Amino acid sequence: MQHKKQGLLLVVSGPAGVGKGTIDSALIARNPSIKMSVSATTRKPRPGEVDGVHYFFKTEEEFRRMIDEDDFLEYMHVFHQNFYGTPRSFVEKELNEGHHVILEIDVQGAFKVKEAFPEAVLIFIAPPSMEILKERLIGRGTETPEDIERRFATASSEVIAMNHYDYVVINEQIEIGVSQMESIITAELCRVARNKKMIANLIGGND
Amino acid sequence: MQHKKQGLLLVVSGPAGVGKGTIDSALIARNPSIKMSVSATTRKPRPGEVDGVHYFFKTEEEFRRMIDEDDFLEYMHVFHQNFYGTPRSFVEKELNEGHHVILEIDVQGAFKVKEAFPEAVLIFIAPPSMEILKERLIGRGTETPEDIERRFATASSEVIAMNHYDYVVINEQIEIGVSQMESIITAELCRVARNKKMIANLIGGND
Repeated sequence: MQHKKQGLLLVVSGPAGVGKGTIDSALIARNPSIKMSVSATTRKPRPGEVDGVHYFFKTEEEFRRMIDEDDFLEYMHVFHQNFYGTPRSFVEKELNEGHHVILEIDVQGAFKVKEAFPEAVLIFIAPPSMEILKERLIGRGTETPEDIERRFATASSEVIAMNHYDYVVINEQIEIGVSQMESIITAELCRVARNKKMIANLIGGND
Repeated sequence: MQHKKQGLLLVVSGPAGVGKGTIDSALIARNPSIKMSVSATTRKPRPGEVDGVHYFFKTEEEFRRMIDEDDFLEYMHVFHQNFYGTPRSFVEKELNEGHHVILEIDVQGAFKVKEAFPEAVLIFIAPPSMEILKERLIGRGTETPEDIERRFATASSEVIAMNHYDYVVINEQIEIGVSQMESIITAELCRVARNKKMIANLIGGND
């Protein structure tokens, strides 16, 4: 019995410096059927940014119309200026084609997505310890000491939210983290709750 | 941060002829830290059967004492003669040593185990189709046509119970089935609900 499987929406969060971007890139490199979600925004494109690749660039009018049409799994209005959001239509199109979609987002966004799309799988990338996270933040050498303190304070509150995620992947070694992500995808596709139609067919095909 | 993980209790069911024994054996061959659960029974050992390997052989008095001491995750009394049961002490000892334990059992037994041990992971091995299952039953050549009909009728009612399992693994190709079982183990070990202590340590280590 063949049954084309819908892709999974993987919502990935984790504190700054934990290496979630590295894990996601490695995962996609090994599994071309996994796609990154593309956000919509009202901010202006920066040099080199391509519409539909880095962002879907929208006017505020277009963005507000998408809100009215319920085309966002989540969105936010930053500093009462720019809007950012996750277009539902893009995500659903990819999922229906059997692709898995990774949505890298902060914990507030993740919970909004879970509410709008309960089948989403919430994965938190955690550091082996908060000390190691702090070292990584310092090691990046891109932030001022004040930035690091601020990011570290945010990280601490994010880590507490991890309790409401489905899975936690400790980023101690990239290879292990990526392989755990792959196992989570495989296992989720085996969940009975995601195979109700196949099961009904199997039982029905019994007559 | 090191934290020794408790093993998982994997409750595996599936209709006769589906090949669950083959999958379990292949899984254990590839992962020596996975153990088969050993049942206790009051029936007499057959030639070649070793106590503690094939079964824990018990007198009826011993078995009833184990029942009184709540040392069974499940047990049954077959034809008002022999008792069979899954000793909790054996399973918990293996899990505490970090081994995963496979318990191959019918659907009634599986639900009893889930009640006694809610952390158990229920996996149903399903055939690609009921037609293929029937062919496999006939192909074994070990049963009479009546036996096959009876087993097939049982299979049909078991397949309906699959809806209450956590995972379904379709046994179309052994290799894929085994690798799905491995992914389920890895993913379950990443579940937030199984990492509450590690998460508390991570948050606590933040001060």
